[in-house]
Formats: sequence, structure tokens, C-alpha cells
Amino acid sequence: MIEETATQIQNQVGRANFTYLMSVAFDGTGYLGWQIQPHGPTIQSVMEEKLSYLFGSKIFLNSSGRTDAGVHALGMAVSFTPPAKPQIPPETIKRAMNSILPAEIRINSIEIRDQEFNARFDAKGKAYTYVIHNTRKANAFTHRWVWQVADKFNVEAVLQAASYLIGIHDFSSFAVEINKTKKNPIRHIFDIRTDSFGEYICITFLGESFLYKMVRSLMGTLHRVGIEKVQPQKVLEILESRNRLCAYDTAPAKGLFLMEVFYSYGEWKEFKLKELPFFVQKSYRQDC
Amino acid sequence: MIEETATQIQNQVGRANFTYLMSVAFDGTGYLGWQIQPHGPTIQSVMEEKLSYLFGSKIFLNSSGRTDAGVHALGMAVSFTPPAKPQIPPETIKRAMNSILPAEIRINSIEIRDQEFNARFDAKGKAYTYVIHNTRKANAFTHRWVWQVADKFNVEAVLQAASYLIGIHDFSSFAVEINKTKKNPIRHIFDIRTDSFGEYICITFLGESFLYKMVRSLMGTLHRVGIEKVQPQKVLEILESRNRLCAYDTAPAKGLFLMEVFYSYGEWKEFKLKELPFFVQKSYRQDC
Repeated sequence: MIEETATQIQNQVGRANFTYLMSVAFDGTGYLGWQIQPHGPTIQSVMEEKLSYLFGSKIFLNSSGRTDAGVHALGMAVSFTPPAKPQIPPETIKRAMNSILPAEIRINSIEIRDQEFNARFDAKGKAYTYVIHNTRKANAFTHRWVWQVADKFNVEAVLQAASYLIGIHDFSSFAVEINKTKKNPIRHIFDIRTDSFGEYICITFLGESFLYKMVRSLMGTLHRVGIEKVQPQKVLEILESRNRLCAYDTAPAKGLFLMEVFYSYGEWKEFKLKELPFFVQKSYRQDC
Repeated sequence: MIEETATQIQNQVGRANFTYLMSVAFDGTGYLGWQIQPHGPTIQSVMEEKLSYLFGSKIFLNSSGRTDAGVHALGMAVSFTPPAKPQIPPETIKRAMNSILPAEIRINSIEIRDQEFNARFDAKGKAYTYVIHNTRKANAFTHRWVWQVADKFNVEAVLQAASYLIGIHDFSSFAVEINKTKKNPIRHIFDIRTDSFGEYICITFLGESFLYKMVRSLMGTLHRVGIEKVQPQKVLEILESRNRLCAYDTAPAKGLFLMEVFYSYGEWKEFKLKELPFFVQKSYRQDC
């Protein structure tokens, strides 16, 4: 028996002439990241299973990018083309999905886009936020979502180091598997910002796109600057070396949040972190 | 072979002539409550295991009370008499325990009390806080710690209903297993207060002591008042009926936090909720 491909199955049921774009929030603690893996649950596998159940035929999701195991999201962008039938209005999909999805995965919004829209290829930028809990005393409730740093953390030094990273650079020093994937290591970082909320320090990376593990690599090196083990100027040297071995250890996944994906040019300028990512008193972009 | 009792084992190692009082915070999500159970992990079983490992002999904990499966704590009070040897200073116990305990159980503080001190019998009062997330949109990050209530929640009506409950009353209507346990159903509630933080409404119960499931039963009925299904005056009728069947369903465990246990008279008057229980920007009573 020949395995059915995505295209074959979708042809059987027929495709709608539009695409849905969803914004999804998730606590990534118990998942092996976004992309389907053979050895455990992923956000993609759970969402595709529930969507396929809802539509009665296999649904495939295009995501704006992958997230590592343990990384969280407030606004992961995902698109899919529904079958021609059944026609289900976006608000119904959202309500039905939020009632059958596990509590740690929530659909914030669903919009209709044209047929050619693709969450991955049409993205114009992304915002990632790292949460540092700058304390010696771990918190029983927030530990899943932070990188706990006991040492004094110098935000001014981090901002100075960040200034060398903003702009268009070869980020070979801050990515893994560059040689293997043969990806173009040149990327555009629009801005790096810091916000403090009590003992928590948030570092937000706004960029056009990021290489594999680039945000975690950047954060690993900025952390060394923050705890004053490395001078800010050293970051320029590391960047210019284009050598991963010159940078410091990758930061842990669990402090990282994919905050938002931008689909129009310059939209990133309006991004503002008002609260801690895991603590939005007003539900984030959930409008139904 | 005869099973060793707590007393026999403690006699073997000798006992110190003082007691330690610990304040413990925990996320109760993955636990079967405080008290040791045959079928899964409890906070008590995990803490006794780690303390016994630390001291090299079996340690038994006295707690200020039990908590149901899924209930959380910011300041559970627990006492134990250490063996005479090894002598371990309180700050060392705290640091060592916090390094070997799971991240969702944290020791806030350890104090030395006299030999006769018992966390349960010496308690003069307790503060419990219920967190209601008053929204139709669940939050992927805070869902473990709230009771999500989609309907409009009338805080003024709850406060009016609460006024009938404050004071010394027979709370038979708001407890389970009263007949089985033959406990005195008369209890003293010092105060019931509300605090709002964005979409979250906190209801704090301050009392001398509470019957089994009493806080959850009270909250179940106050919830009916809050969503305007029941008039506040009805709560007085329910109280006076002394009949559990007249009250409404017990509220879910996961929105409930044991906030603090008081060991001096009137100390409850100084209790003030400054932030949401699961979101203390400044670590709660963690001073090392």
C-alpha cells in the first residue's frame, strides 16, 4: 500500500481557496518543541491531531518557525489550508479547538488570509523574549519559564554588548549546525531591548529571522556580559570571529518565549513588552 | 521483624532539645496533597525523604494541616525535631534542601523553636486565598493555579454574603465528613477579603482553623453568589441550616493557596495580599 502524501489527501477532500493564520500561545515545558518528533509529543503533533479531528480529514500546519523543546510561545504563527468541506467559521474553530486542546496550548486568534499565504515564508520579522530571574531564591511557581541567575546582572553592560549585534551581520558565531545546514549566516537584528519587572529581567530580540539556536546562543553570551565575566566589547570580537567556538554556552530553553511574528514591514517597531510573558493579566491578544 | 515506630527510631538516634519550624511554598499540581498517601507522591513524602537523606536518619514532619491534592501553598508551616547528631544549622538545611528538592517545592525559611513546639497544635490562625480567573479566555501559563470563571463575577455580592460567615458559627453546612469525623463544627472566621489584579479576583479566608474541605465548600457557595445565581442573603440561610446538602458544590482544588500560618494571636490582622499568590515578583519570605 502506497503511503498517502499530504497533497494527495488534500486533493481527495478538496481545498478551500483561502488560508487560515492562527496565533498560538503555549507552555512548552512538557513538549519536544514545535516540530513533529518520533519520540514524544510536540505542539505541532497535538494541534494537527485536534484540527484533523475537527475537520474529519488530515490537516497539515505551516509554522513561522520551529521552537526547541522547552521553549514557550505567546504568539506562534501557524497557517493551514482547510478542506473545502466542512466549512467552519474561524471563531468556531478557535472555540472548538480551545475546548479540546490541552490547557497549556491556546489559540489566541484565527484570521483568513489568501490562498498563497504561508506563515513561514511571509513572515517579515519575529520577537523573542528571554526571561532572567535574577535572584538566589528560586520560585516554586515561575521556575518553568525563567533562567535563574543568582549573580548580579548588569543590564547596562548587556545593552552595550547588544549594540554590536544590532544590524545586518554574519552571525556564524551565534548559531549551531551552520556547516551542516549550509544556511546563509547573514541575519538582520532590528533591535535588542531590556525590560525589568521586579526580580525579572526580560531581554527581547527583534529580527527579520534567526538561525537555528541563534537567540539562545546570543543570550548565552549576553549572560556572561550581564554577570560581568566578559566585557561588552568582547561581543564584537566574538561576532567578527564568525566562529561558534569563540562564543559562550547556549542559554537554557525554558527561559525563552516566541512573543510575536510580524507579517508587515516595520510592525516590529510597535512591539512593546508590558508585562512578563507568562503573566499577562489581560489575556494576550485573545479577543473572542 | 517488628516495624520500627517513629518514636523508636528517634530514640535510637537521640533527639535535639529544640524543634525546627519551616515555611514551605509548593505548586501542588503534580501531588496528591500534603499527607502521605499509598498511591502517589505527596509533599510530605518528598520532604521527609529528602530531610531523612540529609540527616541520615528518619525525620517525621508535623504540619499545620493537610492540603488536598492540587492545592498550593506559599507558606505551609511544618515542624520537626532533628536528631541530636548531626547538628546542621538552619540556613544550611534550607540551602541543602532547596538544592535537592524538586523545583516546585521551596523552603522559604527555617526558625528554631522550643522542644514542645508543634506546627499543628500551636497554630493560632491561617490564611487561604482562592484565585478566580474571571475571563472566557483561558491562559496557557496560569491555568494550573486558578478557577476559571467565564460569567460576570459580582465582588460586592460576595462581600455581602461573606459578612454572614465572618465570626464564630457552626459550619456544618460547609464541610464534608462532619458525621464521620465527629469533629466540632464550630469555627471562627476572622475575616474574608477580596483583592483584584487585572482579570484575577482573589478571595482570602482568615480564620482560627478550618474544617475538612471547608474553604473549598465556602468558595463553592460564594461562587454561586458571585455569578449572581444566588442572592447573598441565601448564604445566611445555608449557614443556619447546618446541612451540607443546602450548600453548593465544592470549588476545585487548583485555585486554592494556603498563604500563611500564624503562630501569635492577632497576627492575621497584618496579612495583606500585595500580588497574585503564584506571581510574587519579590520572592515571598525568602530571606537568605
